[in-house]
Amino acid sequence: MERTDFGSMACPIARSLEHVGESWSILILRDCFYGFTRFDEFQKSLGIAPNMLTRRLNSLVEDGLLERRQYNDRPPRSEYVLTDAGRAFRPVMLALLAWGNRYYAPEGESLILIDRETGARVDPVLIDRVTGKEISDRDHKTEAGPAATDIVRWRMALRDEKRAAAQAAATTVSTDASAR
Amino acid sequence: MERTDFGSMACPIARSLEHVGESWSILILRDCFYGFTRFDEFQKSLGIAPNMLTRRLNSLVEDGLLERRQYNDRPPRSEYVLTDAGRAFRPVMLALLAWGNRYYAPEGESLILIDRETGARVDPVLIDRVTGKEISDRDHKTEAGPAATDIVRWRMALRDEKRAAAQAAATTVSTDASAR
Repeated sequence: MERTDFGSMACPIARSLEHVGESWSILILRDCFYGFTRFDEFQKSLGIAPNMLTRRLNSLVEDGLLERRQYNDRPPRSEYVLTDAGRAFRPVMLALLAWGNRYYAPEGESLILIDRETGARVDPVLIDRVTGKEISDRDHKTEAGPAATDIVRWRMALRDEKRAAAQAAATTVSTDASAR
Repeated sequence: MERTDFGSMACPIARSLEHVGESWSILILRDCFYGFTRFDEFQKSLGIAPNMLTRRLNSLVEDGLLERRQYNDRPPRSEYVLTDAGRAFRPVMLALLAWGNRYYAPEGESLILIDRETGARVDPVLIDRVTGKEISDRDHKTEAGPAATDIVRWRMALRDEKRAAAQAAATTVSTDASAR
């Protein structure tokens, strides 16, 4: 089957997935955030087949998320470090961590995020830097941007239509209820 | 090739990827956040093959991220709505949106996040709800939790070792520089 070209889609979420749509790539990036840089460190951490690891590392380098640096000449040995784009993936990683802990850790949490200074558990929440408000469906929404394509505009229009219909239905229900 | 069982790994990021490691699944969830519920809406939005869409919807229902509801008896027609776990995926989605806009939208942004009240652009940032501090490598770190396995503890130990080595190297460099 031909690989889907998510990178040619207009949506920024699809564009992101073109680069990190493969689970192994995300776990390699996780290990890079731990400061791991070497092939054998990734391999031990991930239990991944060497040919697969080579492939994923090459693709992360090509995609500009990792930079390859030769740290030994004879024999030639490379290490891999996060680029700016790779480091900027951190909020996605932390949001995945929080979500996994909340829903998929029935036996208890194996990894937690803490404050270095106090050692207290962190409760990560996404806010708007400008207003300080927590991002929520009530207060925020997506909108077609300057480079929006027809399909993006169609999605926003259908979303608005469905939201208006749901609100009209809710109003009818409450009117019915108050008329009883 | 056998599919890797990310769900059996201890790491909460790997656990999350067991459920959303497939790019189509994330794009279906995106459309669910827009309020889309029906097969033909997803299909038009995604341009995905019907058999693939059926497969991904079934797997999202099995994983507990979507709930299937029959809205028509003859012919039988189902719609799909987010569960609590599905809705809780929103911060990951928004972090992917922000990352994609920042690094993979050379022609300009096609989708932006705005404040409903003011219409102003949102700059999403992850903070600790308790302290209000922005989550950063300087102030926060991951740590083995109560259900940590050997491999999780090994990762944390290697991370601490590499961080200490990097700090020692930085100290040496600055000592060398001041001795000049």
